[in-house]
Amino acid sequence: MIKLFKIRFHGLQRKLRLSRSFTSATIVQHESKPVRALIMKSVGCWKEIEVSQLQIPAFCAKNQIKVSVDLCGVNFADVYNVQGILSERKPPFVFGLECIGRVIDKGNDDPSFKIGDRVACYSPEGGLFQETVVISKENCFAVPEQIPSEDAVSLLANYLTAYFSLFHSANLCESYSILIHSIAGGVGWAATQLANTVPNVRVYGTCSESKHNMVKSNGVNLPLTYNNYVIELKRRDIKFNIVIDNIGGESIRHSLDLLKPLGHLVVTGANCVVSEEKHVVENALKSLNYNIEMRTLVCDNKSISGLHLGTLLAKSPQTIHDAMKNLFQLYLDGKVKPHIDSIWPLNKGAEAIKFLADRKNVGKVLLSL
Amino acid sequence: MIKLFKIRFHGLQRKLRLSRSFTSATIVQHESKPVRALIMKSVGCWKEIEVSQLQIPAFCAKNQIKVSVDLCGVNFADVYNVQGILSERKPPFVFGLECIGRVIDKGNDDPSFKIGDRVACYSPEGGLFQETVVISKENCFAVPEQIPSEDAVSLLANYLTAYFSLFHSANLCESYSILIHSIAGGVGWAATQLANTVPNVRVYGTCSESKHNMVKSNGVNLPLTYNNYVIELKRRDIKFNIVIDNIGGESIRHSLDLLKPLGHLVVTGANCVVSEEKHVVENALKSLNYNIEMRTLVCDNKSISGLHLGTLLAKSPQTIHDAMKNLFQLYLDGKVKPHIDSIWPLNKGAEAIKFLADRKNVGKVLLSL
Repeated sequence: MIKLFKIRFHGLQRKLRLSRSFTSATIVQHESKPVRALIMKSVGCWKEIEVSQLQIPAFCAKNQIKVSVDLCGVNFADVYNVQGILSERKPPFVFGLECIGRVIDKGNDDPSFKIGDRVACYSPEGGLFQETVVISKENCFAVPEQIPSEDAVSLLANYLTAYFSLFHSANLCESYSILIHSIAGGVGWAATQLANTVPNVRVYGTCSESKHNMVKSNGVNLPLTYNNYVIELKRRDIKFNIVIDNIGGESIRHSLDLLKPLGHLVVTGANCVVSEEKHVVENALKSLNYNIEMRTLVCDNKSISGLHLGTLLAKSPQTIHDAMKNLFQLYLDGKVKPHIDSIWPLNKGAEAIKFLADRKNVGKVLLSL
Repeated sequence: MIKLFKIRFHGLQRKLRLSRSFTSATIVQHESKPVRALIMKSVGCWKEIEVSQLQIPAFCAKNQIKVSVDLCGVNFADVYNVQGILSERKPPFVFGLECIGRVIDKGNDDPSFKIGDRVACYSPEGGLFQETVVISKENCFAVPEQIPSEDAVSLLANYLTAYFSLFHSANLCESYSILIHSIAGGVGWAATQLANTVPNVRVYGTCSESKHNMVKSNGVNLPLTYNNYVIELKRRDIKFNIVIDNIGGESIRHSLDLLKPLGHLVVTGANCVVSEEKHVVENALKSLNYNIEMRTLVCDNKSISGLHLGTLLAKSPQTIHDAMKNLFQLYLDGKVKPHIDSIWPLNKGAEAIKFLADRKNVGKVLLSL
């Protein structure tokens, strides 16, 4: 049975102070032909994910474009949404922070996009795992024609997160040693390649042992396992200029301990809250409620940074657009190349998200429409 | 009446894990002619500072040099020591973290220094406000002959702190806006000049209104007062890529609020704990016991760094030596030039330190021997 949802987003937009134009994109203005979408009906339960028909606006508002979607990128934020960790999302809602497709309509005569253009879209508050999306232009990036769609969509959240972590939050320099957690995942894969654009950088990372050969082929100097990396690094007396931590919780303390003087820790997530057994978690990103003592940072000469692409796009969109241009150029220069783990049909969307939650992927997981 | 102290340092060295060679430098090995030194007899009381005769080692140990001191630099750490904020220092002890003079003896045939060389010395644990010091070579920097002594000694703690804050803890880039607290002080003066070595940087800073014209002449774009800078910056809707905070306590919250997304706060001290009335404070750097929530850093895309030159020298001496070389070169290239506020005789040492505590200085306060 195909159900018809009329989705309205609320709460999170206010929280993130999103642009009015995008908020209005998700509100039904005129009826049009329904489209297929991957929908979460009730958080905390994998069985409550289904493909349903969804009504979308018939026309674009000012500053919006309508995109016919070809491919979507799965992110850990989708896992958070299944588990209800981002408590501002009230079901039913559509999954999906990133997609790529072609412009089929536009709201005004603005010359930045034209019908037929290929665009990559990034929307921190979700809603992109559907056949057609109506979205603010601020969330869209023109894709150079030389870049295949599966690579272009994979350059969004993962590469942007890695890019800002290494080049803005921390200050990656020649001959640095860096440690990256979940190095076989999308961000870890991207960060390894971006780190290797700087001369003589040594990249260390954690992932399960079965993936060690894969990450080595991507430029990791020494892969380590989650179970024994602390002991192993202590034994080898290795410390780092930069640690990128997407685990959160107890891991933050270990990561701080592993920094050299003047080292930078960048925290990009709290994936430790995700487990197969876990149901609804009341507080969003609970494991980021970690207190750091200023005195420790001063006496140890250390830095700690937080990174959240969603709030960054909301507050500083130009920064994201500049970075995206640089990333497309790095791709065209042959400096970075996403690794596609697998492409799943939309009706296998729940399985694709679960695959990521179980850390079975190496690189990017995509959905095809 | 001249008193003779035999000073032994204890506690702090272990705390900082200083090199054995330096620790031994401060322990009397052989009797020699006593030298004049500025000594704290009892913490918490300005009247308990006096010039006394002090016995120093007759010979240098391996890796040590003996320096006949011409000038010393006064720092806020000396104020902390008067007030007993650095509780590891037990009186009596000799003040002074930096000095400059000529090598008059050396402990082995190491070619790095020879008799007659001019050296600048930096010792985080103090002991340098005296006519002759015996000190580890690790704490000494060869000074190019073209640099006058008063400028060379002023390039130590203040310029190193500013240098690491801007170029290591934060990542100063073209066109950044930065806010520097106590901008008329030694570190503020240095940070203004170093910031202005990068194109199109805008420098804002706090100091008392009487110093506004002076700091403008040093390259500050907009000086502000401590009383109303928060209101004034809000009114003008100005936020910063970098804030350098030496105040600590409540100021840390304001500084974090004033950062742009991806901005860096660098905390270099806790000068707010110093007041004329204050006596012995039990806990060292109390106002640095400020807890930062990881979640706030992540959601706001902000970074926070601590900087402490003493522990940095102890743990990473080569980093300090490399930075010092760069600073001497910047001086020779005409890019930086310390401003000497005043030079006081050693027997006015207590008044000179008090002058700094009362924030009456603009730039560097020196002692002459």
